[in-house]
Amino acid sequence: MDTICAVSTPHGMGGIAVIRVSGDDALDIVQQRWQGKPIAEMASHTAHLGHVLDSQGEILDEAVLTLFRAPNSFTGEDVVEISCHGSMWIQQQIVGTLIDAGCRAATGGEFTQRAFANGKMDLSQAEAIADVIASQSRASHHVAMNQMRGAFSRQLSTLRSQLLQFVSLIELELDFSEEDVTFADRERLTSLATDIKTVIDSLAQSYQAGNAIKNGLPVAIVGPTNAGKSTLLNTLLGDDRALVSDIKGTTRDVIEDTVVMGGTLLRFIDTAGIRESSDVIESMGIERSFKKMDEARIVLWVIDATAPAEEVEDFYIKIQPHCHDKAVIAVINKVDTASAFAVEKMLKKLNHGIKTIQISARKGSGVEQLKQEIIATAALPQVTDENAVIVTNARHYHALVRASEALDRTLQGLSSGLSGDLLSQDIRECMHYLGEITGEISTHEILGEIFAHFCVGK
Amino acid sequence: MDTICAVSTPHGMGGIAVIRVSGDDALDIVQQRWQGKPIAEMASHTAHLGHVLDSQGEILDEAVLTLFRAPNSFTGEDVVEISCHGSMWIQQQIVGTLIDAGCRAATGGEFTQRAFANGKMDLSQAEAIADVIASQSRASHHVAMNQMRGAFSRQLSTLRSQLLQFVSLIELELDFSEEDVTFADRERLTSLATDIKTVIDSLAQSYQAGNAIKNGLPVAIVGPTNAGKSTLLNTLLGDDRALVSDIKGTTRDVIEDTVVMGGTLLRFIDTAGIRESSDVIESMGIERSFKKMDEARIVLWVIDATAPAEEVEDFYIKIQPHCHDKAVIAVINKVDTASAFAVEKMLKKLNHGIKTIQISARKGSGVEQLKQEIIATAALPQVTDENAVIVTNARHYHALVRASEALDRTLQGLSSGLSGDLLSQDIRECMHYLGEITGEISTHEILGEIFAHFCVGK
Repeated sequence: MDTICAVSTPHGMGGIAVIRVSGDDALDIVQQRWQGKPIAEMASHTAHLGHVLDSQGEILDEAVLTLFRAPNSFTGEDVVEISCHGSMWIQQQIVGTLIDAGCRAATGGEFTQRAFANGKMDLSQAEAIADVIASQSRASHHVAMNQMRGAFSRQLSTLRSQLLQFVSLIELELDFSEEDVTFADRERLTSLATDIKTVIDSLAQSYQAGNAIKNGLPVAIVGPTNAGKSTLLNTLLGDDRALVSDIKGTTRDVIEDTVVMGGTLLRFIDTAGIRESSDVIESMGIERSFKKMDEARIVLWVIDATAPAEEVEDFYIKIQPHCHDKAVIAVINKVDTASAFAVEKMLKKLNHGIKTIQISARKGSGVEQLKQEIIATAALPQVTDENAVIVTNARHYHALVRASEALDRTLQGLSSGLSGDLLSQDIRECMHYLGEITGEISTHEILGEIFAHFCVGK
Repeated sequence: MDTICAVSTPHGMGGIAVIRVSGDDALDIVQQRWQGKPIAEMASHTAHLGHVLDSQGEILDEAVLTLFRAPNSFTGEDVVEISCHGSMWIQQQIVGTLIDAGCRAATGGEFTQRAFANGKMDLSQAEAIADVIASQSRASHHVAMNQMRGAFSRQLSTLRSQLLQFVSLIELELDFSEEDVTFADRERLTSLATDIKTVIDSLAQSYQAGNAIKNGLPVAIVGPTNAGKSTLLNTLLGDDRALVSDIKGTTRDVIEDTVVMGGTLLRFIDTAGIRESSDVIESMGIERSFKKMDEARIVLWVIDATAPAEEVEDFYIKIQPHCHDKAVIAVINKVDTASAFAVEKMLKKLNHGIKTIQISARKGSGVEQLKQEIIATAALPQVTDENAVIVTNARHYHALVRASEALDRTLQGLSSGLSGDLLSQDIRECMHYLGEITGEISTHEILGEIFAHFCVGK
């Protein structure tokens, strides 16, 4: 492969920066710009102080060069890492002079893509590296690390080998089709396919929890116009994320932001105030609010304590169809300006068995209690087993769903006495989808799509 | 020394990040959080793949550990560098767990300060590291590298040893004072002191060029109110740095910004329009404009081609006292809206032997020619010798000035036949100031002040 280089450390100025070079000619190219012990004489995994030169032979920087010889490197190729002073100018100059000497600037994720191509990891492990780098909480980090270290891959590999055994028996029958023998006991096959489907389905089901861990558990904030939803969001997020004003209908776009609360990443979604509106743009916003509610796991229903209590019932009728399967917390806001009588009346109206909490978003009172309630509601029972494999990647989820559908067809075929060649086709399809996750089956487009989301230098 | 740790790579998310640990217990502390080959068994300057653990023994990350054993490390102490995945979360967690295991969070420049304390470099070399990291142009980088590699230190060391020889002879006389012998030939001493003073003065003089290289060559933009100074600055800088409006006197504060032009770092200074003003704040701004003009090396005098030609002469009378020793370029602006006759008249008025260039700052015409003129004017003749030692640090400059003053007193003393003990005192003082630069003489406060400006992790 041609030799690529890039700054692998974060963008900016710092004490040191690391420039990574990987490829067949990594040693030769860097040697052209290196003053110090000859690189060819260095043992793998050793670090050496020396100078990086420019094309004129002038010293650019004093640097530490670490050599990783193929195949014992991150990419599986010869890799040279140059640890230089962390000025932007030096980083640019060193990358520039290496390109001048024959390197190509690496594209996003290209080092990891090479590691995959050279069999250092499978595709789901490679994807997990991007997740590890992007992880913001202990839970998301843990899930990504687990995937990177191959727990998911091992589980998929077990399933595939079981399916392979299955399909081999059926295909063996096809070879002896004239003789009408049955190598594969249909009952045993049905039981095996059912077991495999159970595992695949439980992996696919883990995606809801996995997605919540990776992108944040969705919490929708809904309520009538001017109930104080944006103020509440700002209080919960701790800064002025959403635009707040006293004009009704300020929040037309859905605003989302994530925050780690009690170790869980929460994704708060501030929605447009839900009311009858003749404004087309605002109506679209309300439509979107309902859609966002459908995605949410928790709904914070913000109620204006100073509003007429009748409106509360009307509003509940509107949102109820969208609250199916969600935890709803009624947040009675503005209790600082409402009379005790009004609040009392409101609480009576809320006789729907809904958890209620009284707050003043503006003054911050009751907010801590609300946070505790959210944390308790958000607790994800699925991740009690620290080492359980959890799917966090949409691509993997969709492949698992398709694999499960192929198994459904297999099971139907088994029960209806479908011929071996058609059964074999469904099982092969199931294996294909599982193989897509690990990259045993991959196309140029899939790989391009996956690695395009990586940062350059990894 | 206690063991310190910090992220040494730039702040933010990236492919990888490097966490540096240095101190007596670096190996023991990191070992508590390391799963892989035992660190005690690793040879110096070798890299090893393994896992970083948290305090519970859970895997935090897969990482490459590189060991640098004392004294062959940057700080001269045992140093462990951990190259981990570049997520903010992982960086924080690893630093956190190392602190938990007994490290202390490093303060800004603390690694470099230890390198100085352990004799790996002198003070001026340590200071040069911060300059190397901050350097924005080839010239500033070159000067800082030169200093880091010890060119300045070697020159100072030569001077000090000459002075030491000098003072030794005089102090030898003092030991034999009863006998009235003269070991030190006063004429030879005078000649030596003169030579040393020449070198010290030329080093001090290089500071003007050095400061221009490091902080940018100061270019003041002056002219009457509304002549288009801010528009010109924006055109030269290539973005909307200064506030521009049609109201006279918009620019009340002095605006500065740097840009690299033709390889030279230029510091453009936009000044308040100079005119008679009753507004107190604006008058202060005009006062400051004159002060800034005094600091500048190049003055861009912006002339409004559409203004009455008489005003141009009046204005020149005002600024002339501040143009001593500077290169003045008259920039005739707004030539797109002025008549050819008016421009002709203006050029005649400018019969002061001043270089003139016609532009339209708003339309951008003539700007390229102006840039070329600025680059030609800015060319620093002092730095033609690539390896000349150039002083870029204000602290060094002031120490050199004081050393020179002490030598002045020495020379006066020699010519007036001052006694040996008083002569010796002046020479010792000169040596003291030179020693302050390299850190042979240093106080806790000086060190604190110097290293406080470093970034953490270096």
